[in-house]
Parts: sequence; structure tokens; C-alpha cells
Amino acid sequence: MKKLVFVRHGLSEWNALNLFTGWEDVDLSDKGIEEAKEAGKKIKQANIYFDVAYTSYLKRAIKTCHFVLEESNQLWIPEIKSWRLNERHYGALQGLNKKETADKYGADQVQQWRRSYDTLPPLISEDDPKSATKELKYSHLDKRSIPGGENLKVTLERALPFWEDEIAPSLLKGETVLVAAHGNSLRALAKHIEGISDDDIMALEIPTGQPLVYELNDDLSLIKKYYL
Amino acid sequence: MKKLVFVRHGLSEWNALNLFTGWEDVDLSDKGIEEAKEAGKKIKQANIYFDVAYTSYLKRAIKTCHFVLEESNQLWIPEIKSWRLNERHYGALQGLNKKETADKYGADQVQQWRRSYDTLPPLISEDDPKSATKELKYSHLDKRSIPGGENLKVTLERALPFWEDEIAPSLLKGETVLVAAHGNSLRALAKHIEGISDDDIMALEIPTGQPLVYELNDDLSLIKKYYL
Repeated sequence: MKKLVFVRHGLSEWNALNLFTGWEDVDLSDKGIEEAKEAGKKIKQANIYFDVAYTSYLKRAIKTCHFVLEESNQLWIPEIKSWRLNERHYGALQGLNKKETADKYGADQVQQWRRSYDTLPPLISEDDPKSATKELKYSHLDKRSIPGGENLKVTLERALPFWEDEIAPSLLKGETVLVAAHGNSLRALAKHIEGISDDDIMALEIPTGQPLVYELNDDLSLIKKYYL
Repeated sequence: MKKLVFVRHGLSEWNALNLFTGWEDVDLSDKGIEEAKEAGKKIKQANIYFDVAYTSYLKRAIKTCHFVLEESNQLWIPEIKSWRLNERHYGALQGLNKKETADKYGADQVQQWRRSYDTLPPLISEDDPKSATKELKYSHLDKRSIPGGENLKVTLERALPFWEDEIAPSLLKGETVLVAAHGNSLRALAKHIEGISDDDIMALEIPTGQPLVYELNDDLSLIKKYYL
């Protein structure tokens, strides 16, 4: 039986301010730190020992990973970071207040951007100083691979290669795996693992700071899932 | 010009209690955390951007690595951990008070254990419950490779393969490298890099929390070294 645990990072400083965050590299809030530590304590109580941890390029997920590993006394395990586990890129909405955005574009439009599987947000162009193409941490990537805005469909398309090339091979080798990431990158992976339809996936909400355990068969099909 | 930066972890909870630590996985003290953050700020001020960070299996070094990367805004870079960067294993002295040990064995004997290049401390046997062979984090290693006590000579012999296989190849590829580790594992690497003799090496004391920068030629010979 294969075991995979997801931890979604907790409250960030921008969540607290009700801003669209996406690839903006904002820090955990104090509450977010507490949520991560709590998740680590639950993993310790459940006697789950990881062989490897995967996380994103964004500090709120990386720090969540570190707090989880520290609290469960396994800070020494290998940790691999990838932009493919980043949060959904929210395009030109990043940094905007959700309420103000609703006032400007209408609540229906904002709801569609937030809840539609395949509607793209307004994009940031590559020339925009706020484009991720300007950031050192993405400078090893072909610029054409760096999104200017994503829906969940596109998020899944860029997260799936990381599942295929890293997470699934780890599980198939018999490793117990931690993935500390974001609401939408975890939702995208959950869609793949659980075989959830395009129509149903946006209703799946993974709570923050609550470890989600997947038990999988040898072929990585789902046995069961539960929260710690 | 190649650039390599060493950061020695700061005060741990056992340093503060004057205990022999070695491979005991004790935490940083509050002062040690401050030292690590300060090191990160200096690296940020010096505009040093790392391509990769190496650290040990011990949380006081790993956390130092994390604080340095976080303060210098590069928490996303790859981090690789190895037992080969661990502190010198202090054998049966681990957990003993330095003063009490001097009272029991004599100050000269303790001084020799601490300051001789090739005198081994009293060893822990593999059967001892305190042996590192009992720890999950070393369970992937051949037990015969796990020390029961080390002098600096043995520390260098097990650290050098990590220099040869990981750190040197990174530098030769043109990467800027951080190593966050311990007084003796860093001293061992410094002996190799600087070509310091067996007689002179024990006098080299790398201060805690002060980034030590090595500038190296293309063949990894030393140009200069300085502290930030």
C-alpha cells in the first residue's frame, strides 16, 4: 500500500488582506505558521515517516513543508522544490483586492475566474515588470513555459509532468511522500489521482493545514483518502 | 571566478549547556537562530545568489540553512542534505558535560580529544542504544560506514567524498554554492580547500554565524577568503 500526504499551506499575509495571490511570493501569517506546525504534530501522532518531500518555489509552501517536517522530527529527509507545484497563476488579478475586483468587473465575472475550470483570468504580458519572467527563480525556464495567468486546467497541465516524473515514480518505488503546496496545485493533483471530472473538481476544497492522506494501490489507483 | 560560502551554525541548546554534541540532533538556541538570520542578512547585503545549498542531517545546520536562505530571499533554491556534512561524531562523550568530563578524565585528556587531529574519543559500540546505527535517518547506510566516534582526520575522510561528488562538481559547473554545516565538517573541508597541514588545522576556528566566502580559480585553487 502506497501512502501520499498533501498539506495545503495555511493563511498567508495576503489571504488575511483578501488579495489575489497566485505566484506572488508572500509569507505565511502567524496563523499560517501555527496551522503548519499543527499539521506536523498530526503527522507525528499518526507515525507517518516520509522518504521525500515535494514543495513549490513559493515560500508559504516551502515554510509549511519545513514546519511540518520539523514538528514531525524529520527535517533531514530530502526535499525537492518545483515551480510545477506553484499555486495557480492569477494573471493580472494578482495583488488586487477581491472585493474591489468584484466591484470593478462584477461579482459574476470574478466568480467565473475563481470557480470555472477553464476560464483564464486577465493575463500579465511578458513585458510587464510584474511578469514572472522577470524573476530570478524562473530564469532557468524557457520564457514560453512561464504563465501570464492560469485556470485550473492549465495548472493541471503544468503540474501533471511533476506527478509523472517525480511523485508517481517515488510512490512506485515504495516511498512515502509528502507534498506541501497550494489550494489549486493540490486540487489539480487530486483531480488526477481521484479521477474527478472537469465539472466536479472546482467543488473540491482541500482545507488548509489538515494533512490529507491518500492510500493507493500498487498501480496508484485510489484505495481511500482521509484527513488527519 | 568560483564562489563558495560556508556558514557555521550558531549556538545550540547543548552548546549553551556546555555538553559534547556531535551527532546528537539538538536544536538551535534563540541566539543561534539570531546568528543564522544575521548571516542571511549579510549574504543579502553582499548580493550573493546561490544556485544550490548543501547541509547536514542535523537540524541545527538545516535550520541555519533555511534561515540564511529565507533572510536572503532565496528559499526556493535546491537544498541537498547529507550525513557526510554532519558534525564530528564525539563518540561516548556525546551528552556529557565538558567540565565533568575534564574532572573525570583529566583536562589534558579532554584537551587531546578536542584538539588532536587524529586521537579518537571513546567510541560508542553498535549495540549501544545511543548508537547512530539505531536512528532512522541513517538506516539507508551500511552500518559499517556509521561512526561510533571520530577525530578530525576521520571526519575529513567521510566529508571529502561529498566535496568530490557534489560540491566540487557544482563549483566546476559555475554554480555559486552555500554550505551550512558544523565547526568540524567545515574545518575538514577548509583543510582540503586551503591545503592546511595536519598540525595547523586544529588552530583554524571558523566563527559561528559569520559567512566565510571562498573565491576559487577554475581549478578550485584558492584566490582568497574573507568573512562577510
